[in-house]
Amino acid sequence: MKKSLVALALLGAFAGVAQAQTAVQIYGIVDAGISKKTDSTLAIGKRDNNRLGFKGTDDIGGGLKALFQLEIRYEPDTGTTESGPTNRPLFQGQSRVGLQGDFGMVRLGRGLTAYQESSSAFDPFHGLPTATGFQADLLVAGYTSDPLSGTGAPNRFANAFFYNSPEMNGFQVNATVATKESNAVGAPAIVGHGTIAAPQYASGSEASANPYSFSATYNNGPVAAMLAYERNGVETKIWDIGASFKATNELKLTANMARQNQSHSVLANPITKAFVVGANYTMGSGKILAGYGQKSPDGVVKTKEFSLGYEYSLSQRTYLYVDASNRKAATTVNMYQVGVNHSF
Amino acid sequence: MKKSLVALALLGAFAGVAQAQTAVQIYGIVDAGISKKTDSTLAIGKRDNNRLGFKGTDDIGGGLKALFQLEIRYEPDTGTTESGPTNRPLFQGQSRVGLQGDFGMVRLGRGLTAYQESSSAFDPFHGLPTATGFQADLLVAGYTSDPLSGTGAPNRFANAFFYNSPEMNGFQVNATVATKESNAVGAPAIVGHGTIAAPQYASGSEASANPYSFSATYNNGPVAAMLAYERNGVETKIWDIGASFKATNELKLTANMARQNQSHSVLANPITKAFVVGANYTMGSGKILAGYGQKSPDGVVKTKEFSLGYEYSLSQRTYLYVDASNRKAATTVNMYQVGVNHSF
Amino acid sequence: MKKSLVALALLGAFAGVAQAQTAVQIYGIVDAGISKKTDSTLAIGKRDNNRLGFKGTDDIGGGLKALFQLEIRYEPDTGTTESGPTNRPLFQGQSRVGLQGDFGMVRLGRGLTAYQESSSAFDPFHGLPTATGFQADLLVAGYTSDPLSGTGAPNRFANAFFYNSPEMNGFQVNATVATKESNAVGAPAIVGHGTIAAPQYASGSEASANPYSFSATYNNGPVAAMLAYERNGVETKIWDIGASFKATNELKLTANMARQNQSHSVLANPITKAFVVGANYTMGSGKILAGYGQKSPDGVVKTKEFSLGYEYSLSQRTYLYVDASNRKAATTVNMYQVGVNHSF
Repeated sequence: MKKSLVALALLGAFAGVAQAQTAVQIYGIVDAGISKKTDSTLAIGKRDNNRLGFKGTDDIGGGLKALFQLEIRYEPDTGTTESGPTNRPLFQGQSRVGLQGDFGMVRLGRGLTAYQESSSAFDPFHGLPTATGFQADLLVAGYTSDPLSGTGAPNRFANAFFYNSPEMNGFQVNATVATKESNAVGAPAIVGHGTIAAPQYASGSEASANPYSFSATYNNGPVAAMLAYERNGVETKIWDIGASFKATNELKLTANMARQNQSHSVLANPITKAFVVGANYTMGSGKILAGYGQKSPDGVVKTKEFSLGYEYSLSQRTYLYVDASNRKAATTVNMYQVGVNHSF
Repeated sequence: MKKSLVALALLGAFAGVAQAQTAVQIYGIVDAGISKKTDSTLAIGKRDNNRLGFKGTDDIGGGLKALFQLEIRYEPDTGTTESGPTNRPLFQGQSRVGLQGDFGMVRLGRGLTAYQESSSAFDPFHGLPTATGFQADLLVAGYTSDPLSGTGAPNRFANAFFYNSPEMNGFQVNATVATKESNAVGAPAIVGHGTIAAPQYASGSEASANPYSFSATYNNGPVAAMLAYERNGVETKIWDIGASFKATNELKLTANMARQNQSHSVLANPITKAFVVGANYTMGSGKILAGYGQKSPDGVVKTKEFSLGYEYSLSQRTYLYVDASNRKAATTVNMYQVGVNHSF
Repeated sequence: MKKSLVALALLGAFAGVAQAQTAVQIYGIVDAGISKKTDSTLAIGKRDNNRLGFKGTDDIGGGLKALFQLEIRYEPDTGTTESGPTNRPLFQGQSRVGLQGDFGMVRLGRGLTAYQESSSAFDPFHGLPTATGFQADLLVAGYTSDPLSGTGAPNRFANAFFYNSPEMNGFQVNATVATKESNAVGAPAIVGHGTIAAPQYASGSEASANPYSFSATYNNGPVAAMLAYERNGVETKIWDIGASFKATNELKLTANMARQNQSHSVLANPITKAFVVGANYTMGSGKILAGYGQKSPDGVVKTKEFSLGYEYSLSQRTYLYVDASNRKAATTVNMYQVGVNHSF
């Protein structure tokens, strides 16, 4: 049947698209568990970031391909999109489009910064956001990539350009640069070196300088290492060095050290140092995770955390876990959790 | 080309996931119709719950499988997520992950309670939420499973553990237990036995006892029956008994009786009784639905509803419908609707 | 037709559903670019509407099929759902279900009006919403299809019935009629011929008359034409005439002329006239887009826009673009952008 322009449009199909339908891949993680924290009621929550994503590639020829990825984040215990101090976007995980070829990969959109994406490899809890792990706070010294949009998305750049080099002899460099655009409707002002009446960054401010992020990584057999530097929209800077070593087939050791400098927007005690050391030990379908981390903000009480976890794989896509952690700062919080993680 | 850890992460692909890509299933319902209610303008709306879902399983071996299900609910007439007195979550339908085996099925997350899920089988309008049916109000005696999160999600538990036994000789038991966690940002306070200054349940309160829900069902040839009990976060209790009987291949009769007790949070007249009787009569591609129900809250005028519907299947996945209902309470409302229901 | 992995996966699915499981199609566009506007910071944004959609059909037999379409719109630079002056619905693109047969296509739900859908074919920037194009403002003389829901969805009807005739000898007619229902929680009042205390349309008003939209289109070889008329919920009317002509295989010329009459809700100067003329020139994988448009609201300064664009196809599904435009009204704004558009 011959279709009119309108009929084609109505079906949302360009002729070109119909002929070359891509293999859109749906993927995700559902992770839910039961946890108990000191002085909190028993809770059902998550250990990992829960996601539902859509991605695909388009082979352009000549070794070049176009690619996109859209990733919803959500809370399985309540069914909402991922919640934070401020509302998080639907595609909190990422929303990017780009090209990949011999030169590496370039993308536009919003996603984890080069630093934040690289650092999770040096966390004994492999980057899990859970309070029994280290990624969300200690590993990055409490650093926030996008403070001007509130703390709704602490480790991503919006309005950004992303570059990843190809891996050469185990080396790879990754860079992210964001525009100064405001993407902070309703974010709180940052008083900083200003006053309440005239804050250094008013609500909805543009960045005072282009945020950027850089990481260089090295992977070679049992050894991996990272050197990273990032500056956010309020010109907070962070250095981070991480390394991991597979001592045996079963045992992997990790270490990470970060130094954050908030002097551009904080009046006193701008430096925060942190380190995390850890180990993973694999035994058949089981894996033990152990870590110790410390965050030392200038002039404020240190945070010290010790965590122990166990993961048991039921299949390649599903594992059970049980964790315990002890976190000491002004108060001490113990946390225990048990749950299931399912990838699809 | 050998890819680095970062490159793999960038593509959102775990090694394990890539090897064992699951068959994610997309499913849903789009139901839209035209309706007219006494003293309301002609409206376009829905008869069924509109949904877009994602689900899948992972065969673990030994008769065990992991499973997940995420279900968006939406309004086709306006394109929004499902609307209610308060904002409903993106995955209003459900967000659950769990394991299934010989022992039955266990899941964590948010979904219909054991009671609410079982009761819809004893509704002559097979659980449709439309005002011309009985599920949303009469069948459950106006009972609400999650009053502490407003009325945004009246028949689900968040932060819950779900168990369904295997079916044995037609018998099955189902149980849901929720934590006391608050999941009610912005929900109104419930004054109850307190005062406006000191309500029994302040906005954002935790439950005063663990909500739980239980149903036992029996299905054997032409006979089905249910016995259910549930207690919500403000300790309202409900008993429900339902039964259905296929008198002939064409004719199915249903009956349901419920008793709600709100004495824990209501000062006077805490009891609401309700019953619904109905019939379905199948004629080729057509089906007649008829029902009468009554809700009798202590000290308040009764609600009496009579509804008549007709469904005509165009295919296994698409049917047309036309309904009429008369609902008498303090005022009388007649409602007529015609529409289309499409499953995918 | 080649089916996506997902569509195939769906075929091997649920027991009951498996017999007639539909091939749900996932489709979409990710478009992101870098732009610079006079007196604005460098920005990352979009040129096209970014979408993630789900659609499918159900062959009923006898030439009849049921169909549905749900389309998310989003911003790739921030990962949010499509933003506008008011919150846009999750399925901002469309949410419709209907039937198609020899009689044409009927659908219920929410989507582009007959007029707004037809007019984009007469835009030299093929209906792209970017400020370097004409669709969003000039082509439709600044007209808004749904003013009572704020300006959140300026070219769609909610609560509507959609009809598209089959194409006969190149002719097709399309009609959309909406109910008077209010779908404007929180929309601003429209003072109009009333007062601030008693606005002509209070916030949340029903339409004063049924909104409707009509277009007749003609497509025959190199010639296409459109005649359209629409009246929205505040009884603003618009006439529009468009035509295009493929002078050669490479060159297509377009012209469009519209006249909006807001006299029902505007006190003075209710008439706005607009025209847009343009050309597309194809050279191998490249295409030049050029257009000039003018919007002349009574008693207000004219808007004049000249735009030039270039698209280079990397594949059937991916193209790069670079645009420049000059827009003169009370102030003059130049805009430049470069980016990538990927369909899936």
